[in-house]
Amino acid sequence: MINIPAAVSSRLPLYYEYIVHMEEQGSRWVSSNMIASALDLTPSTIRQDIKYLDKIYSSSFGYSTQSFRQVLEDALGISAGNNMALVGAGSLGRALVHYKGFASKGFTVKAVFDKREDLIDTDIDGVKVWQLGRMNEVVKRERITIGIITTPADAAQQVANMMVDAKIQGIWNFAPINLRVPPNVTVENANVMPSLFSLAFKMKVMASTKK
Amino acid sequence: MINIPAAVSSRLPLYYEYIVHMEEQGSRWVSSNMIASALDLTPSTIRQDIKYLDKIYSSSFGYSTQSFRQVLEDALGISAGNNMALVGAGSLGRALVHYKGFASKGFTVKAVFDKREDLIDTDIDGVKVWQLGRMNEVVKRERITIGIITTPADAAQQVANMMVDAKIQGIWNFAPINLRVPPNVTVENANVMPSLFSLAFKMKVMASTKK
Repeated sequence: MINIPAAVSSRLPLYYEYIVHMEEQGSRWVSSNMIASALDLTPSTIRQDIKYLDKIYSSSFGYSTQSFRQVLEDALGISAGNNMALVGAGSLGRALVHYKGFASKGFTVKAVFDKREDLIDTDIDGVKVWQLGRMNEVVKRERITIGIITTPADAAQQVANMMVDAKIQGIWNFAPINLRVPPNVTVENANVMPSLFSLAFKMKVMASTKK
Repeated sequence: MINIPAAVSSRLPLYYEYIVHMEEQGSRWVSSNMIASALDLTPSTIRQDIKYLDKIYSSSFGYSTQSFRQVLEDALGISAGNNMALVGAGSLGRALVHYKGFASKGFTVKAVFDKREDLIDTDIDGVKVWQLGRMNEVVKRERITIGIITTPADAAQQVANMMVDAKIQGIWNFAPINLRVPPNVTVENANVMPSLFSLAFKMKVMASTKK
């Protein structure tokens, strides 16, 4: 597990998304050529990456989607279940709590925190909003391992410090700043812009093709 | 322009994010080694990719961040400016309209559409909410080229059809379904899950390293 190169591990979430999609479409088998074509990689990259994973059941049709999904769920820590706390009950925070895609993948928002007094003790989709001062206690009781930051940029570092104090192990950061955390805490910055740039680029290519 | 391989073009938005970040941090020069290290690619991949772009000003310190950013802005269609319409004024839609990162990169939300009568003629951060029936007229007048879909999945295809009718050229889709559109329309699906999976994976690796 610990010896998977970063370049390989960065592709595992993409494989997982693709396999889940294919399984939902009713596909029981996928080949490395199919994955390569869908994700714009080479088949040999796929086959090399798979060598780092547990054994995936395969046949002459390719890899079993069910087996592939289960192996990836183990590798990605999805099967274990992950409890999350979200700080910042603005529109982005609410959108994430509303989002239906987490729970089916083993991620559950267990608590929301905000500094606005009028939100305390209300709930968002059944998830209670707490005072920031209750973080240590709630994180411990609900066995929360992941913190989501959806505050403005100028509050994010302070919130990250509180999460670190509460022994949260991973931070999913939506605020547009680079957080400073101790080396035992993992930070992943979420960013929608690359996907928008990619759209603009493809549109430009299409426009120039038509000329 | 039209001959850039898909594998190369998929990396350009990542280069752009990195260069903008470095420029904001005050860096005037970046080397292919620095980019490679930050983005987990090889320096030769970076140098190969750059051959597809316009000439970037460079010195013995590396590439000029300013020149690199400008070349990428041209390649990605960012410098031209892109007007956008958003359909679905729920929490995610509002979060995107609130988001400050678009305008500085040349993307502007010019109109919001929703089917809820009580929202029509209100505004979100100064952007007016319109009836869906006004889409053709508003898209034409505001020279909108990109449509953002933040509706529930079961409404998304119908909204995409309306966007196609209104001659929108690119759709940034946040609804969890695959849209069917004519070949002259570009669709980019936005998805936050890979970033969350990546966090969970890194946390798992860190936990197993400590054992």
